[in-house]
Amino acid sequence: MATKENIEEGLELTLKFDENGLIPVIAQDAKTGEVLMAAYMNRAALDATIQTGCATYFSRSRQKLWKKGEESGHFQKVEQILVDCDQDCVILKVTVDAGQCHVGYQSCFYRALKAGSDKELENIAEKVFDPKKIYKT
Amino acid sequence: MATKENIEEGLELTLKFDENGLIPVIAQDAKTGEVLMAAYMNRAALDATIQTGCATYFSRSRQKLWKKGEESGHFQKVEQILVDCDQDCVILKVTVDAGQCHVGYQSCFYRALKAGSDKELENIAEKVFDPKKIYKT
Repeated sequence: MATKENIEEGLELTLKFDENGLIPVIAQDAKTGEVLMAAYMNRAALDATIQTGCATYFSRSRQKLWKKGEESGHFQKVEQILVDCDQDCVILKVTVDAGQCHVGYQSCFYRALKAGSDKELENIAEKVFDPKKIYKT
Repeated sequence: MATKENIEEGLELTLKFDENGLIPVIAQDAKTGEVLMAAYMNRAALDATIQTGCATYFSRSRQKLWKKGEESGHFQKVEQILVDCDQDCVILKVTVDAGQCHVGYQSCFYRALKAGSDKELENIAEKVFDPKKIYKT
């Protein structure tokens, strides 16, 4: 079994998947540093990502592997895979084209909490495509 | 109940906490865009973060609120709180000093998978402080 020191200081990938076999994954634009989305991978999704170089996640709602872009065409080319200290989170540094979020924005994080409020959001980005033209459903 | 459209396009914060009452949170350096760490918040941690302007998480291992920096002194000043499309993930844009990871690095993501390998990591950062001098335990 991996020790705390091995996990934190070692150079062997010993990812900690949760009780559902999943690990949270952050996709970050390799060029701009913008965080594009957060999703989950199981072991098979990670293997597919490593083997193909194309970000593949596990869809919790559909309970199946989901190659990002398989419907929209907005694939994520994986440049680097980072792990955190306790190996329970992954960052994918990705090269992408325009429009990574299915709502129509470049990033899924297109809203921020308004200053001084604990419940009101404001848009901080503009849509870069019309999702109705891309997605059939 | 919030509809999919309200959640995705609305301007009301309707965060989706998981079955344990938690939501994943990404801390990102507001200046450099570097992702510093990933952690979790419960509702009380979010409220404390909004009220104090200082990032407060929920420690799953200790099962209690954890004001980042309470032991190390490396606090995170929250500049902006972003939510994603389905409101099940949060980004904190934070201003920080040097050394955000307890292992001694600026970011928790100090290792990357080696090109061509599916299990070997390489260090991609240098330590910025000696954790033995900071933490008592």
